[in-house]
Amino acid sequence: MITKLIRNAWKLVLPATLALLAYEQTPEAAIREVLDKQSVAWNKGDLETFVSFYDKDATFVGETVTRGPAQLLERYKKRYSTRDRMGKLTFSDNEIRLLGPANALVVGKWHLDRGQAGGGPVGGIYSLVFVKTQSGWRILHDHTT
Amino acid sequence: MITKLIRNAWKLVLPATLALLAYEQTPEAAIREVLDKQSVAWNKGDLETFVSFYDKDATFVGETVTRGPAQLLERYKKRYSTRDRMGKLTFSDNEIRLLGPANALVVGKWHLDRGQAGGGPVGGIYSLVFVKTQSGWRILHDHTT
Repeated sequence: MITKLIRNAWKLVLPATLALLAYEQTPEAAIREVLDKQSVAWNKGDLETFVSFYDKDATFVGETVTRGPAQLLERYKKRYSTRDRMGKLTFSDNEIRLLGPANALVVGKWHLDRGQAGGGPVGGIYSLVFVKTQSGWRILHDHTT
Repeated sequence: MITKLIRNAWKLVLPATLALLAYEQTPEAAIREVLDKQSVAWNKGDLETFVSFYDKDATFVGETVTRGPAQLLERYKKRYSTRDRMGKLTFSDNEIRLLGPANALVVGKWHLDRGQAGGGPVGGIYSLVFVKTQSGWRILHDHTT
């Protein structure tokens, strides 16, 4: 019985090994992971990590156009200067469309759960263009309203 | 003299012919042409043509998300129901970034020159994602504020 089990073990182990070897995260999963990491960073008050998921050539459209992660960090620090103002960020309803192998478009909703001290709850819609870089998927463009 | 001219004519004609054969509109030029055609259509009051440059799977983010050219046409017809309300449309400051061979990101400004009867002048920023289709470059996503 045990000999037979051992003799047949490869039938279980081999497919599992092959599955692991073949494993590569899908672009959609990688992008969702970036968005998850961003909201986790935001909710820790860690704007540096939040902004690190923007590409070096990133552009951000709010009321005006902001260029690059450094300028974007400044904007966020000014706009969300306290933890109360930052509130609790949630992304939802993300719709991901791949644009070739190295780009993707994401349309989704953001919501900041904030008390009166922080300015009250606020939210809207964003359109993100992602680019696949050597460090992973990064936001190349963000239009948030 | 004339014989020499004829003998040397290929030196002039050949490069010009090759240049014509090699001619293919760049993605940037094709996209600018679409935007030009859109503003010309708008300024003629021709919303059908304006909307025809949106892809069948297009999404549009304004205050809400609109899906597809038909729904978008309805939105425009409601919002810009008279020539006064449509005003004169200008696109400017278009910054085009190619995303692989079949997609592009365009960030630019729109302005509606309108009299008081139309609601006064208005404008803002748009982010467009283009896709190259068999009918040419089309808008796959539009986030306009």
